[in-house]
Amino acid sequence: MEKFEGYEYVEGGVCAAKGFRANGLNCGLNPDKNKNDLALLVSDTACQTAAVYTTNKVKGAPITVTRRHLEATGGMSRAVIANSKNANTCNADGEKKAERMAELTAEALGIEKDEVVVASTGVIGQILPIEPIEDHIGELVQGLSYEGNAAAVNAIMTTDTVPKEAAVSFDLGGTKCTLGGMAKGSGMIHPNMATTLNFITTDAAISSILLQKALQEVTKITYNCLSIDGDTSTNDMVCVMANGVAGGQEVSEEDGTYDVFRQALYIVMMNLTRMLAKDGEGATKLIECRVSEAKDLDTAIIVAKSVVRSPLFKCAIFGEDANWGRILCAVGYAEAEFDITRVDVDLASEAGVLPVCRNGSGIPFSEEFAKEVLAKDEIFVNISLHQGEKTAKAWGCDLTYDYVRINGDYRS
Amino acid sequence: MEKFEGYEYVEGGVCAAKGFRANGLNCGLNPDKNKNDLALLVSDTACQTAAVYTTNKVKGAPITVTRRHLEATGGMSRAVIANSKNANTCNADGEKKAERMAELTAEALGIEKDEVVVASTGVIGQILPIEPIEDHIGELVQGLSYEGNAAAVNAIMTTDTVPKEAAVSFDLGGTKCTLGGMAKGSGMIHPNMATTLNFITTDAAISSILLQKALQEVTKITYNCLSIDGDTSTNDMVCVMANGVAGGQEVSEEDGTYDVFRQALYIVMMNLTRMLAKDGEGATKLIECRVSEAKDLDTAIIVAKSVVRSPLFKCAIFGEDANWGRILCAVGYAEAEFDITRVDVDLASEAGVLPVCRNGSGIPFSEEFAKEVLAKDEIFVNISLHQGEKTAKAWGCDLTYDYVRINGDYRS
Repeated sequence: MEKFEGYEYVEGGVCAAKGFRANGLNCGLNPDKNKNDLALLVSDTACQTAAVYTTNKVKGAPITVTRRHLEATGGMSRAVIANSKNANTCNADGEKKAERMAELTAEALGIEKDEVVVASTGVIGQILPIEPIEDHIGELVQGLSYEGNAAAVNAIMTTDTVPKEAAVSFDLGGTKCTLGGMAKGSGMIHPNMATTLNFITTDAAISSILLQKALQEVTKITYNCLSIDGDTSTNDMVCVMANGVAGGQEVSEEDGTYDVFRQALYIVMMNLTRMLAKDGEGATKLIECRVSEAKDLDTAIIVAKSVVRSPLFKCAIFGEDANWGRILCAVGYAEAEFDITRVDVDLASEAGVLPVCRNGSGIPFSEEFAKEVLAKDEIFVNISLHQGEKTAKAWGCDLTYDYVRINGDYRS
Repeated sequence: MEKFEGYEYVEGGVCAAKGFRANGLNCGLNPDKNKNDLALLVSDTACQTAAVYTTNKVKGAPITVTRRHLEATGGMSRAVIANSKNANTCNADGEKKAERMAELTAEALGIEKDEVVVASTGVIGQILPIEPIEDHIGELVQGLSYEGNAAAVNAIMTTDTVPKEAAVSFDLGGTKCTLGGMAKGSGMIHPNMATTLNFITTDAAISSILLQKALQEVTKITYNCLSIDGDTSTNDMVCVMANGVAGGQEVSEEDGTYDVFRQALYIVMMNLTRMLAKDGEGATKLIECRVSEAKDLDTAIIVAKSVVRSPLFKCAIFGEDANWGRILCAVGYAEAEFDITRVDVDLASEAGVLPVCRNGSGIPFSEEFAKEVLAKDEIFVNISLHQGEKTAKAWGCDLTYDYVRINGDYRS
């Protein structure tokens, strides 16, 4: 993990920050009893809560319900209930079921229904059986623990092969604070939305407005710069809960402490984004595309995303083939304004840096060295537009036989 | 092939219309001597010529040169020279080489250089060796024939597994005319440009302005509604040549004869589009998505394209899995305005029609019958938006192991 001065990586995921308990168990939605399918995350005190949601017109019922709850409470929440294996989307009774999930959670915790964030992930268009959740909510609450993050993250995984957690501690105006999160997602991930399920917790105190602002700013340059396959999910959500349990003054101005908080959020969300990319369905390699010297941030983002989305380039990286023409092709169809004849491209990895294109034209390179560079499992594409000073990164992965296998028969 | 009243399918591809000769041979760009790599198409007389090109910022040198030539002649041409195996794109000497191809062709035919359309397809960013073309241009011209379409279409194929040709005869204001074409393309195909190499010839007489207008109108609802993989190529071109050799009055008004001509162009381009989709890299199935009852044509097109582009849906079709939630997901993220709660979706094939979604929600269906429907090799997705009267189709194919294999090591 990349180091950032003043921030220390710590264990604990969503339980790293003070005052957050979590649990997860198998309630029977998933026939594999060794895999959890129901997660609960609870704060000891009420939290300022910010969220961003999918931009897909088809929205999972949990999205609609969560939105309604956070509006009703003015952005305050106490708990998150989330299930995997069923997206509870495109079902006529979807909202009813999602409300019921919140109700069951609220009753078991002795809180208000509107203080519960609801999330679901899995197959679209299958009726969510509510009985397994009704039957296990008591046990789920019973088992809540300040070390329950592992059980919870296991419960939100779908085709994920590894759990995704990150957390940092940092000094916020003299108070030691912690911010951590968990994410799930492997397929149906594409820029322009929150992307899949992501829960972030912090014991820092921050105003509702600034929490939402920080979340939107950081989402734009992290999750929204991630593409596994170009499909924008119906159930995407990033939710940040700040309970202020660490004490200290609330961040309420866009001053230095806001920047410190925002950077903590960036570090955790960027690391989760990289983990999501690396664990993309069927992926064998992480692709990180860095676009620099762009005239503005949007141009840099659009070009970087276009490259990590290209199926042809993704296949070439799987084949460890330095087919840089496909990079330039994807740069060329990116919907942004720049002069293609000034573009430079390098491929890079632990093995070294391989310049492949200068001023929009190919330059000779050693195929042997190219093979060495591309044999690594983290591949960097560095593109300079030479037309400004802005930089952005986007993350993706290679396109492999396993992606096709996994998605050829996902429902079974 | 779908039947259209008043139009008769005929053999002959680009040589079906009177006054067009063609040839193709292996000049050595392709090490496989059984595969042609250089095509020549010549009209006996000067042709009104319309063309549409890729929208990619990275444009193959042949695109730039062809554009320049057609501007210089005011949209008149006599010949097309095209090679496969090398795209002549992103090379510092690209334009020089493309001009040289035109020059060689013009000299051998005794015509002007600017009367030559130049096209290349293949790997991006590798220097095009001109010697093989210099050495074989004489033989290529020598072998020109009114039955040379098969040799020519073979020469423009890259990863195509079958040649793509279509032609129709029709009555145009009392004169029997013919319009035919050839296309190549299998990967790097995506809406919003001409799409790959397509050459259409006709012996009908039509004004330059109406020829360009018909080409643009028809491209929008045929080639631009085709997606194999979401990558917009750098070398796409559709070129239509009308030599008027059939005689009869020139189509010069947007009257009934224009409609007859435009329909002939539609039939040929639509059939070539279907062939391109069916032969998409690694494809085992053609997907045709028909969106009806849209408020306008653009909405119908955008929604249909979104579905045929979705990698997750494409994988599901490969797996013969009726995962219709992915269709609705792709409908939902299409960038158009409509009410998702009124959307109906049917899957269909020769085996029958399977309704899967009504008013945006799933409905029960027989998995057994779904398997039967999806086992066929042409799959239809019929979507009704119930919000207007416009209809559009888009074409694509499934995403398979072979797509990954083909593109994992394309350059070798």
